Amino acid sequence: MDDLKTKALAYHKKKRGKIEISVKNPILAKEDLRLAYTPGVAFACQAIAGDVSTDRIYTNKGNSVAVITDGTAVLGLGDIGPEAAIPVMEGKSAIFKSFAGIDAYPISLNEKDPKKIIEIVRALAVNYAGVNLEDISAPRCFEIERALKKLLSIPVFHDDQHGAAIVVLAGLINALSLVKKKKEEIQVVVNGAGAAGIATVHLLRAYGVRHIIAVDRQGILYPGAKGMHSYQAEIARLTNPKKRGGLAEAIRGADVFIGLSVGNILTKSMVVSMAEKPIVFAAANPTPEIDPKDAKEAGVYIMATGRSDYPNQINNALVFPGLFKGLLSAKISEITPGTMIRIAENLSKLVRKPGPGNIMPSLFDPRVVKTVASAVSKP
Amino acid sequence: MDDLKTKALAYHKKKRGKIEISVKNPILAKEDLRLAYTPGVAFACQAIAGDVSTDRIYTNKGNSVAVITDGTAVLGLGDIGPEAAIPVMEGKSAIFKSFAGIDAYPISLNEKDPKKIIEIVRALAVNYAGVNLEDISAPRCFEIERALKKLLSIPVFHDDQHGAAIVVLAGLINALSLVKKKKEEIQVVVNGAGAAGIATVHLLRAYGVRHIIAVDRQGILYPGAKGMHSYQAEIARLTNPKKRGGLAEAIRGADVFIGLSVGNILTKSMVVSMAEKPIVFAAANPTPEIDPKDAKEAGVYIMATGRSDYPNQINNALVFPGLFKGLLSAKISEITPGTMIRIAENLSKLVRKPGPGNIMPSLFDPRVVKTVASAVSKP
Repeated sequence: MDDLKTKALAYHKKKRGKIEISVKNPILAKEDLRLAYTPGVAFACQAIAGDVSTDRIYTNKGNSVAVITDGTAVLGLGDIGPEAAIPVMEGKSAIFKSFAGIDAYPISLNEKDPKKIIEIVRALAVNYAGVNLEDISAPRCFEIERALKKLLSIPVFHDDQHGAAIVVLAGLINALSLVKKKKEEIQVVVNGAGAAGIATVHLLRAYGVRHIIAVDRQGILYPGAKGMHSYQAEIARLTNPKKRGGLAEAIRGADVFIGLSVGNILTKSMVVSMAEKPIVFAAANPTPEIDPKDAKEAGVYIMATGRSDYPNQINNALVFPGLFKGLLSAKISEITPGTMIRIAENLSKLVRKPGPGNIMPSLFDPRVVKTVASAVSKP
Repeated sequence: MDDLKTKALAYHKKKRGKIEISVKNPILAKEDLRLAYTPGVAFACQAIAGDVSTDRIYTNKGNSVAVITDGTAVLGLGDIGPEAAIPVMEGKSAIFKSFAGIDAYPISLNEKDPKKIIEIVRALAVNYAGVNLEDISAPRCFEIERALKKLLSIPVFHDDQHGAAIVVLAGLINALSLVKKKKEEIQVVVNGAGAAGIATVHLLRAYGVRHIIAVDRQGILYPGAKGMHSYQAEIARLTNPKKRGGLAEAIRGADVFIGLSVGNILTKSMVVSMAEKPIVFAAANPTPEIDPKDAKEAGVYIMATGRSDYPNQINNALVFPGLFKGLLSAKISEITPGTMIRIAENLSKLVRKPGPGNIMPSLFDPRVVKTVASAVSKP
């Protein structure tokens, strides 16, 4: 890990970050300036003033996405502040450009009041064809996302919620076919009822999974449980009718464990108590909910993590570049559960010969972006 | 003009605008992703969380400037809305990069309330090492600029005010030496008491010009004149003690006319009424305050315009790229009148053999950016 630290810091320091602005036509002479700036630019301004939709013809707006955070839930590091979130935003931007050719502008906000964040993003949105919310803590992220979806006519996507949910579902589809279990019959435990966990519960239900138990710090969520915010209460109402207790009680007899929580929370004895051929997705970063070695010893049949150094990486980067590519090219502003399921299904099909160590497509498979984009734009 | 319109629209349409995001290190393999994104990026985040000043080491922030408008005073086109302002913001960004290597992020705000604009820019500022305010109408621009200068520890520069004032002063210095008149003795009329006009009055006074008359739509500004906002009242108090009337009265006997107003407002007979060897800066865009041909016939000795197709172009692009280059490299946050005068003086010296048709340096003279930057960073 120390070696990675040294390398990663050197990588960030060498060129002072990861992205920059490029000029599409370099300004080398008076004639360039006459067209790009005054007086020529005035004609582009007037064209847009006359028909505002031409902003996608005369500016880069149609290919631009804002990546917006307030720095309150950065990776697994928590509320580390807007400045400390910038490396993640720049990384996201670099992935957007490298994988999908999209220009993503990193915007960290020095503001934590959800109402003010909503107002700021509303005012900023004219510059972009889409908004990718990122690393905003729950339950604030839900309020912000819902309000912006109502206010704006461009797509608003909270990657920590829906990106995670889609990738989990893609992996689960292949995992279920390998263990020959049916979505309607499996028992699923979702551990961690934050942004990703809550969105995953909703997406699994939309996909047809019937038996889900959500667990958070306070234990199993159930209708009327104490200490839940309204978005947790909502999934409590929609899921588990009977079980009470903690993770140990939840997991007994379960077919699938989906961890979107914190490291080292799933013990070997919990895994042993699961149904046959246990499926464990331990996506906490950088430390998974259970060490893959322990998981194997305890009899896990299919194991996925959030890490790139183990098989079956659950990585949002499989989704967001292609998702926005599809949204921007088809000028779609709504991302429905149906679209999300279609993305997951099509991603799962990219794995030609699924096996316990091969349920996710590779990030560097060039079909990934195309597949996701067309799942969005061609229903 | 129609030919320029066709060319300019084609130029903007061909590549859909003028700027895009580039990735400093392309992400081509898992190892790149491991350093640029999870898990490696977490070390850069933690370093910044531990010492926030390292955001300039591990991100692009130190080279980043926000170019911010609300679309209320775009070029000479007025309040055409935030979308229609984007081509100017992108043009500014293209100039920043082409001339000074600075990454300028265009931000048009769909918000006109100055208090809310101040709040939004305060929240956004963590991403940038400087703020360039642009095309915001007067007097709102003054309130916004003053508030942000107090709130933020990074430089805040309203180009329409100070960029214009500096370039005007640079040209005036050479013009005065050609006509052998002294700054303390000349009579100057500043026509147009908006952002640029008001800032020019302040800068000329700081430079040592004693006799200034400001004129706006309502006529000559004087202490107690009606219909002035507080920023106009301030310059009225600081300038003309005696003259009343309109532009015709103001200009009689004047040595210098500085137009930062609207086209075709200065007549030939007004020019004839000026002192000997009249100096006329007609900077309105795209139509100057007086046509250069008329000006010549009326006996103007030195004529400058805002246009690139006449000699002596008064162009802010001579200033803002180098100004921010100096500010960012020396980590200076305050731009004093002394700094602005130094920039103007040094710019004027770049013209080796000044003549009536040669008082401004060329934008494409590579010494311009260096000269301006070192005038800022090395007092």
